[in-house]
Amino acid sequence: MRAYDLLEKKKRGEALSQEELHFLIDGYVQGEIPDYQMAAFLMAVCLRGMTDQETEAMTQIMRASGAQIDLAGIEGPTVDKHSTGGVGDKTTLVLAPAIAALGGRMMKMSGRGLGYTGGTIDKLESIPGFRTALSTEEAVAQVNRIGVCILGQSEDLAPADKKIYALRDLTATVDSVPLIAASIMSKKLAVGNQGIVLDVTYGSGAFMKTPEAAVQLAQKMIHIGRSAGRKMAAVISSMEIPLGHYVGNLCEIREAIDTLCGRGPEDLTEVCAELGGAMWALCCDKDRETCREEFLGVLQNGQAFEKFQQMVRAQGGDLDAALEQKAGYTREIRAWKSGYVTHMDTEKIGIAVMTLGAGRKRKEDSIDPLAGLFVAHKTGEYIEGGDLLFRMEASSRERFASAEEILCSAVTMGNDPVSTPPLLYKILH
Amino acid sequence: MRAYDLLEKKKRGEALSQEELHFLIDGYVQGEIPDYQMAAFLMAVCLRGMTDQETEAMTQIMRASGAQIDLAGIEGPTVDKHSTGGVGDKTTLVLAPAIAALGGRMMKMSGRGLGYTGGTIDKLESIPGFRTALSTEEAVAQVNRIGVCILGQSEDLAPADKKIYALRDLTATVDSVPLIAASIMSKKLAVGNQGIVLDVTYGSGAFMKTPEAAVQLAQKMIHIGRSAGRKMAAVISSMEIPLGHYVGNLCEIREAIDTLCGRGPEDLTEVCAELGGAMWALCCDKDRETCREEFLGVLQNGQAFEKFQQMVRAQGGDLDAALEQKAGYTREIRAWKSGYVTHMDTEKIGIAVMTLGAGRKRKEDSIDPLAGLFVAHKTGEYIEGGDLLFRMEASSRERFASAEEILCSAVTMGNDPVSTPPLLYKILH
Repeated sequence: MRAYDLLEKKKRGEALSQEELHFLIDGYVQGEIPDYQMAAFLMAVCLRGMTDQETEAMTQIMRASGAQIDLAGIEGPTVDKHSTGGVGDKTTLVLAPAIAALGGRMMKMSGRGLGYTGGTIDKLESIPGFRTALSTEEAVAQVNRIGVCILGQSEDLAPADKKIYALRDLTATVDSVPLIAASIMSKKLAVGNQGIVLDVTYGSGAFMKTPEAAVQLAQKMIHIGRSAGRKMAAVISSMEIPLGHYVGNLCEIREAIDTLCGRGPEDLTEVCAELGGAMWALCCDKDRETCREEFLGVLQNGQAFEKFQQMVRAQGGDLDAALEQKAGYTREIRAWKSGYVTHMDTEKIGIAVMTLGAGRKRKEDSIDPLAGLFVAHKTGEYIEGGDLLFRMEASSRERFASAEEILCSAVTMGNDPVSTPPLLYKILH
Repeated sequence: MRAYDLLEKKKRGEALSQEELHFLIDGYVQGEIPDYQMAAFLMAVCLRGMTDQETEAMTQIMRASGAQIDLAGIEGPTVDKHSTGGVGDKTTLVLAPAIAALGGRMMKMSGRGLGYTGGTIDKLESIPGFRTALSTEEAVAQVNRIGVCILGQSEDLAPADKKIYALRDLTATVDSVPLIAASIMSKKLAVGNQGIVLDVTYGSGAFMKTPEAAVQLAQKMIHIGRSAGRKMAAVISSMEIPLGHYVGNLCEIREAIDTLCGRGPEDLTEVCAELGGAMWALCCDKDRETCREEFLGVLQNGQAFEKFQQMVRAQGGDLDAALEQKAGYTREIRAWKSGYVTHMDTEKIGIAVMTLGAGRKRKEDSIDPLAGLFVAHKTGEYIEGGDLLFRMEASSRERFASAEEILCSAVTMGNDPVSTPPLLYKILH
C-alpha cells in the first residue's frame, strides 16, 4: 500500500477502506507518512468529504491510538457531555453537579481555553486551591463518593487526533464535518461513559456557521456513538450571542452558581435544562420532559449547588476565598446612540475578553482569573443612548483600550427591530 | 499575510492575487512556508482550480525564481518545442535538425527519462561520444554555426517549479491543468525562444487522459505564452499507442534517422509534419500548409538528415559506431490467437521497456542504450495467431521474463474490429 495512491483515491472522491485509513493514520502517528502527505489528504477530505463508514473507521483508529479510560469502577449511570465550544459557555459547571444531584455519575474531563473560547478547567482554577490534575483512580473514587468530578483531560487520549488536529490547525483543514466528528468522537469513545450528550453550537462564535451544518455534524457524531454502543443525544443551540451575561473565568463561576441556585439568566438556564434533561434521560430512561422538570427541580431546591460545593471541597478549592476576590479595575462601555442591537459578533467578544487577560493567545500564556466582561444587552434588545453595553474587568488599566476598540466593533446598532435566532434550534435523540 | 489564510481562501474556491501567490511560492522556496502548507495548497488547487490570471502569475513567479536564458545572441528565428511526454516519442530528434535545415534556429533543451517515459538526452547519449552537457555559450555558438543544438536542460531553470513539482509528485497533485501549465511554461519562458510549439498528448500513456483535457491544457499554455509575447501553437495528438515501432534509446535513434530520410513510419512522420509545419510557420510567417510541405521536403531531399549528422559531429558523437552496435539478446512475443488488437496499454509498454534496461526506475539508475522494443502491430490491426507482436532486445537474458509478462498484459485482443482514436486530434494556432 502506498500513501500516494490513497491521496489519489480521495482526491477523486472515492471512499477509503478501513485498512487504508489504518495504514494512513497509524503510519502518520509513527512518523512513516510525512506531514505533507497527511496535509494533502486532509485538504482532499475537506473538499471531497468522507462517508459515514470512513468517518466511523477514522474515529475508531484515532480512539485506539491512546489510553482507553475504563469507567467500569463507577457505580451508577455514567454520562458525558461535549460542547463544540463557544463564548461564555459555562454549562458544564452547572450540568455536572446537577446531574450528580439527580443520581447520575459524571466524571467530566475538560480542556483549557485557547484563542477566543474559554475552557472549563481554566474557569475552575480561578477558585483558589482547586485541583484539576487528578489521576483516573482519584477521579473514579470521588465520583463514587459524591457523584461528580471535573478534571483535566488525560494527555494520552487519542494522540493520533492530537497530531492530526495540530496539522489541521496549520493547513486550514479544520472546518470539515467528518474530520470534526472523528476528532471529537475519538476522544469521547476513549472514555467509557454509557451516555453522551452533544451540545453542538452554531453561529459566528462556533465552528459551524449555520444550524443546518450543526445538525449534520450532530447526526454524524450520534451515528458514530451509537455504532459504538453508546446512548446518544444532541442539542443544537445558537452561539450567535454569548450564553449568560458574563464571559471570563471567576465571573463565569459566579454566574454558574446563580444558575445552580435557580436564579441564573434565562438563556443559560434554558440551555442547561435542555442538555441536563437529555443527559438525565440517558441515565434513567424516563421521558425527556420529566427529566427536564427534575433537572430544574435540583436547581430550585439547592441540591445542585450543594453538589457543586461538595465537588469544590473534594478537589481542594476554597469557594469563599474565590467569591471574595474582585478585579482591580473596571471600565464601562455605554451605547453611543439609541436603537436596536442588530448584531453581536461573538468571536470578537471572545477576543476582547482574551485581550483583557482572561484567555490565551498562545498555549503557554497565563490567565488572569479575575479579568472578564459583563454583557448588559444582547441582539434584538432596544436600548437608549447612554445605557450600559459592557462592563470590562481587568487587573491592569492598560488592557482596556484595545479591548474597548474590539467590543465597539463587535456591536451593530440599527433603527429597526431584528428577529433573533432561536437559542435552541433542535434536539436530536 | 499568513499562509493559513491563503489556504483557506483557495479551499473556498476563491482566486489569489499576484501578491498572495508571490508570498506563498517565494516563501516556500525560501523555506519559510513548510511542505505541509504547500501540500494542502496544491491539493486545494487540484480540486478548486485556478483562474487564468492566477496560472499566469504562478508561471511568472516560478520562471523568475531561476536563470533566464537569453537567446539574443542567436541570429535568425528561434523556435522551441515541448511535448507533454509519451512512449516512443522521438519527434525532437526529427524536428530539431529538420527545422535547422529549413532555416529556423533550434537550441533545444531536453530532459532525461524517468519511469515509463523516455528522454531525448538519454536517446542521444546512446551515440558514443555525444556530449549533451554544454554551456549556453557553446550551444549558442553551435546554433549560429549549424542551426541546431540539443543539450541537457540547465539545472537552475525555474527552481521553484522543481521544488513544487517534487512535492506534487509525492502528494498526488500532479494532474491539475493549471499546475501542469504553470510548471511547463515557467521553464519554457525562462528560455528566450521567439516561438513555442506544444505537443500535448492524451491517452493512457500521457498526463491528460482525454483529448478534451489536452485541449484545455494547450489553451491555458498558449494563453500564458502569448501574454508573455511569444508566438504559440499547439498540436493535440494521441498517445493511445506508441509513436513509431521502436521504444528504447539507440533503436529510437535508428527510427528517427529513417524518418529524417523520408522513410519513417507513417504515424511518426505525420506527427512530425504537423509539429514541424507549425514550428516553421512561427519562424517564417508563411501559411501552415506550405510550411508542412516544405518540412516534408527537407526529409525527402536529405537536408534534414545532413543537419542531424552535422549536429552529431559538432557534439562529438560517432554515428557510424552507434549504428554498428546490436543488443546481445533478442526474444520475440507472438500472438496467442487470431483477432483484432483492441487495446494497447502504452504505460505498460513503457514500463516493460524500462524493465528491459532502457529506462530508469529511480533517478540514479543507469541506462542500457541497446535495450529496446520493436512493436510490430498496433491497436485496430487484425493479426493471425503466431504473428509477431513484439521483439524485445536486451543485454541480459534475465530481463526478458518480467518484461514479457508486462507486455502480454498490455495487449487486449478481440473478435470485432475497433475504431482507433485519430492520431492528430486538433491543431491550435
